Amino acid sequence: MCQLMGMNANTPTDVMFSFAGLATRATEHKDGFGIAFFEDKGVRLFVDPESALHSPVADLVKRYPIKSSHVIAHIRKATQGQVRLQNTHPFVRELWGRYWVFAHNGDLKDFNPRLHGSFRPVGDTDSERAFCWLMQELAKAHASVPTVDELTHTLAELLPQPARHGTFNCLLGNGQALWAHCSTHLHWLERKHPFGAAHLADEDLSVDFGALTSPGDRVAIVATQPLTRGEDWTAFGAGELRVFVGGASSGYG
Amino acid sequence: MCQLMGMNANTPTDVMFSFAGLATRATEHKDGFGIAFFEDKGVRLFVDPESALHSPVADLVKRYPIKSSHVIAHIRKATQGQVRLQNTHPFVRELWGRYWVFAHNGDLKDFNPRLHGSFRPVGDTDSERAFCWLMQELAKAHASVPTVDELTHTLAELLPQPARHGTFNCLLGNGQALWAHCSTHLHWLERKHPFGAAHLADEDLSVDFGALTSPGDRVAIVATQPLTRGEDWTAFGAGELRVFVGGASSGYG
Repeated sequence: MCQLMGMNANTPTDVMFSFAGLATRATEHKDGFGIAFFEDKGVRLFVDPESALHSPVADLVKRYPIKSSHVIAHIRKATQGQVRLQNTHPFVRELWGRYWVFAHNGDLKDFNPRLHGSFRPVGDTDSERAFCWLMQELAKAHASVPTVDELTHTLAELLPQPARHGTFNCLLGNGQALWAHCSTHLHWLERKHPFGAAHLADEDLSVDFGALTSPGDRVAIVATQPLTRGEDWTAFGAGELRVFVGGASSGYG
Repeated sequence: MCQLMGMNANTPTDVMFSFAGLATRATEHKDGFGIAFFEDKGVRLFVDPESALHSPVADLVKRYPIKSSHVIAHIRKATQGQVRLQNTHPFVRELWGRYWVFAHNGDLKDFNPRLHGSFRPVGDTDSERAFCWLMQELAKAHASVPTVDELTHTLAELLPQPARHGTFNCLLGNGQALWAHCSTHLHWLERKHPFGAAHLADEDLSVDFGALTSPGDRVAIVATQPLTRGEDWTAFGAGELRVFVGGASSGYG
């Protein structure tokens, strides 16, 4: 299984602290990593089939404070598909003049939907296949980019379909919102005023967010397992879909 | 105007030397840079709206020997579209389960083709618009990924159409081949046995390829202006299309 991390904020924020926490879990999840940063409508995608512990690309991400309001990261332990660049999450496609970024934790059995649209997998993972199917179905459901609420409604209908084939914890973002769907393991957290201190769960590293933020800042973090101690992480329920906009979370259904 | 660099080789090769040469030209071409590396069917895309002279991402690319058989790089001097991440070349789209990478040097006036297919620009450059149109027309011309020869034939019909609207020097790659089309300025070079030494045109840096290569290696480089002294660069003619496969070049038409 893999580890996911997503960040959504109302002001561009760096994720060096959270990514450092995620990367320590790459001892076990050694089959590559990837992280996508939205900046306005553009995306920077860093992917490497090397472990996030040793990759020079991961080292850059840990040290270069890229500020973004929407981030999706993934460290991989291969279940389906070889350890190759084309199988490294997150995956990116364009739809309606917007980039869409997707990462998946889990394993889908016999999910082989008919892909008759404009989205085809490049690699051979179940995850990219599910992403292409999601993009195809979104493209069928809406003629142009809908509101976040409309998208959430459509996704709430679509996401249970691959989820019936196995474990489907996933993050999807388009630079307007971050959607998170849980089958088994996913946790979320909102950081807002008054900001406190947090301590990385896996590493001897603390940060005082009060010293680094303004009172109006608001940041939501989603992760497979809580990344910090001393903060109030909430576990998703099985089948739960949440959408994060401007650092604030809302559930669906 | 911008500067383009492409590399196509019969064995994975790093482009640190050539990219260092390109990056020195970022004094003038300061509005961002990007470089895409194919590894098998996967792509690593590094983009930064910062100058390649100062960007930590460019610094990584100059120091991390990423080996690839297909590389497309671009340093930008903005003519159309703001200096933003979504306007930074190269652009990437997926078609037929393959990634396609495109970078453009030049300026198109009034090229506003109807985009009725599945490819829409995310940013607001003439370049991405031309790329989306090319992808749309390729998708219409072939039902699935054709041979390189068939693609070259189709591209030879398509590329003159945007080129009628201005300057259209461009590089297109899909991990199987690199296509280069020239309106005004583009040069190419084949490096093969016996390998000699080369000296960067803009910087006090030399490399002896003989010490770094095997006799069977073959590498083609395409660049807006020759990157080195002491090597035999050939200028493209106006309207010329060349395709590079396995480090060998062939002209079309």
